[in-house]
Amino acid sequence: MGIVGAYSTKYELRSEKEAWDMLREVVEGVMKSVEKGVDGSDIDLVIVANFSDRFGGLIHTAPLVASLAKARRAKGLRVENACASGGTAILLAWTLLKSGLARNALVVGFEKMSYQPTASEANEVLSLAAHPDEIVTGASFTSLYALIAKAYMDAYGAREEDLALVAVKNHENGLRNPLAAIRRKVTVEDVMKSPYISWPLKLLDCSPLTDGAVAVILSSEPRKFTDTPVYIRGMALSHDLPGLFERPDITSLIAVRNAAEEALRIAGVEVKDVDVFEVHDAFTIAEIVIYEMLGLARKGEGVKLIREGVTLFTGEKPVNPSGGLKSKGHPVGATGIGMVAELFWQLRGEAGEHQVKGAELGLMENHGGTGSTAVVAVLSR
Amino acid sequence: MGIVGAYSTKYELRSEKEAWDMLREVVEGVMKSVEKGVDGSDIDLVIVANFSDRFGGLIHTAPLVASLAKARRAKGLRVENACASGGTAILLAWTLLKSGLARNALVVGFEKMSYQPTASEANEVLSLAAHPDEIVTGASFTSLYALIAKAYMDAYGAREEDLALVAVKNHENGLRNPLAAIRRKVTVEDVMKSPYISWPLKLLDCSPLTDGAVAVILSSEPRKFTDTPVYIRGMALSHDLPGLFERPDITSLIAVRNAAEEALRIAGVEVKDVDVFEVHDAFTIAEIVIYEMLGLARKGEGVKLIREGVTLFTGEKPVNPSGGLKSKGHPVGATGIGMVAELFWQLRGEAGEHQVKGAELGLMENHGGTGSTAVVAVLSR
Repeated sequence: MGIVGAYSTKYELRSEKEAWDMLREVVEGVMKSVEKGVDGSDIDLVIVANFSDRFGGLIHTAPLVASLAKARRAKGLRVENACASGGTAILLAWTLLKSGLARNALVVGFEKMSYQPTASEANEVLSLAAHPDEIVTGASFTSLYALIAKAYMDAYGAREEDLALVAVKNHENGLRNPLAAIRRKVTVEDVMKSPYISWPLKLLDCSPLTDGAVAVILSSEPRKFTDTPVYIRGMALSHDLPGLFERPDITSLIAVRNAAEEALRIAGVEVKDVDVFEVHDAFTIAEIVIYEMLGLARKGEGVKLIREGVTLFTGEKPVNPSGGLKSKGHPVGATGIGMVAELFWQLRGEAGEHQVKGAELGLMENHGGTGSTAVVAVLSR
Repeated sequence: MGIVGAYSTKYELRSEKEAWDMLREVVEGVMKSVEKGVDGSDIDLVIVANFSDRFGGLIHTAPLVASLAKARRAKGLRVENACASGGTAILLAWTLLKSGLARNALVVGFEKMSYQPTASEANEVLSLAAHPDEIVTGASFTSLYALIAKAYMDAYGAREEDLALVAVKNHENGLRNPLAAIRRKVTVEDVMKSPYISWPLKLLDCSPLTDGAVAVILSSEPRKFTDTPVYIRGMALSHDLPGLFERPDITSLIAVRNAAEEALRIAGVEVKDVDVFEVHDAFTIAEIVIYEMLGLARKGEGVKLIREGVTLFTGEKPVNPSGGLKSKGHPVGATGIGMVAELFWQLRGEAGEHQVKGAELGLMENHGGTGSTAVVAVLSR
């Protein structure tokens, strides 16, 4: 079971394209990306990931995508697990293919967040993925992650300047990625001077509202379609209690840890073996906590990795060479599939200017809510 | 693999409950419905069906439902296939259980359509499930089904009064079902006098906007949980081209026919063997076309079945003893799961006043859009 093709629109803050245009573009693009050719009749499974129809105005997209691909035999559905929708879609495709229930899957994720006229309205839609008892308080994900940041800073002596380093790194990386939505160098000073959204998180600690779509094709006979497939060696999904208020320790994202442990175990590798990481830096604090949950650092020591440059593009363990959610962007339903597409290119040596040299093993981590769903995959050639 | 428990809220036009209240009610209700007891730790798969977050204001409901069930080990996701979301959720659970990928699944569907302040706004949300090129013309599902009705009437000499008979039958049935949203006797005259929504379809040809939620539990070890499980003997999903304008003959719903043929074949039975049917009468014309697609009547002769009373509660082939979407209601994400719950009760002899006597084999048909997704299941004790 391997990935045989991938295509992404450019991620943009406000795309001129409708969601429907994006679907047409990525379905055509991914079919053409398959070197030995793929026909609609080869596709027997279609999975679409989309956070909300309020971000694009489309419902019932599975038969639409099947029809665009001329996949007349395919069976399809849309899946949603908030910001982990893309990862969930890949996981379901992988699960069904692995079990022989389908042979070739087309997985598409999209989000047109600028469908909402203002950022405030878009953020209101995003907030619906929190616990209902958080929603009624008017909490936003920025305010929820701000609680995590505050707790982490108090517990482990991290400073706002440390969080800023994640933004600096990922924006630096995004400069090398033509797909990235915000290709702009950012300094610690820029981050520190940007306005507070929810203390201690500032504008430049947050990933942007983004439009974009991505598609990949997975096959149980990958060599039929390409000589250089990329394989999912292990993959897992895990949940945590939905409300931050329900958890004993909000400086951990337990679902991320559990999904990572399971995915690595299935793959039969350790995190130290991984050469390149794409992770869910929806907020700068998240990336630091993710380091710890993946086992790249001990509890409370994730902040050292960013201080010491370990996760820089040129560091020992490059994290988010694509620019991550922070610079590349976060078109929610597309995000997890975009990570898989990025690793597909990285592991085939096709990532261009942001290619991590000699990358053989990659890991993607995609989570939803404040980590109540997490999906982790380990990939290699 | 059998169904071991089921619970439904009462379907209502405007429930006082929030979507969140409904989820709590059905999760508690379904857990209690399992005779030998079920524990959260038994549940390892959670699937939620919901048409749109504009009908309830909740996103990321899978971890929420898992948490309500105290199913801490479960893996979950939400699925959407427009009005076939519920059927799709059951199909996915069945598929994963059958393949040994999960053991016990909690499947929940809900929709709070009155979350939209007006019927007009609710209908706008529903319309997003049409083909994008239909949406831009301002088409509603009533207008799209009106095209089907017009084509059917022209081709086969059916009259508006014939369509009305479906409403009369299903409202008569709904009188016997305490869960039904509209328990009111309706005559052909009532239907004929009701205002046109989109000629030839009148208000009483259309299923109502409804609030409701349903949950079922499926198990790969059903006898552990009940002595009287109900089994899914065959089940299938099929798609058609999404746009009515793309299809050679709009008096057929090809996906329904294909899904029914496949489900019956898997079950190893013929449609004539089925004792009780729950089908997707979102509009009266749909039920007549469904008769033909299921093989209960030849093409163009479905209308005879309703004229001759074959599908009455007291007829040879009772269709929609629950009242169907027309009288019981159509809380979209819940609908397909509600059909399965209804057949669970029918086949266990627990359907009370609307029990079809001696029913041993049941069939449910749930479709989305104008039939671009269809799900059919065959069930028995």
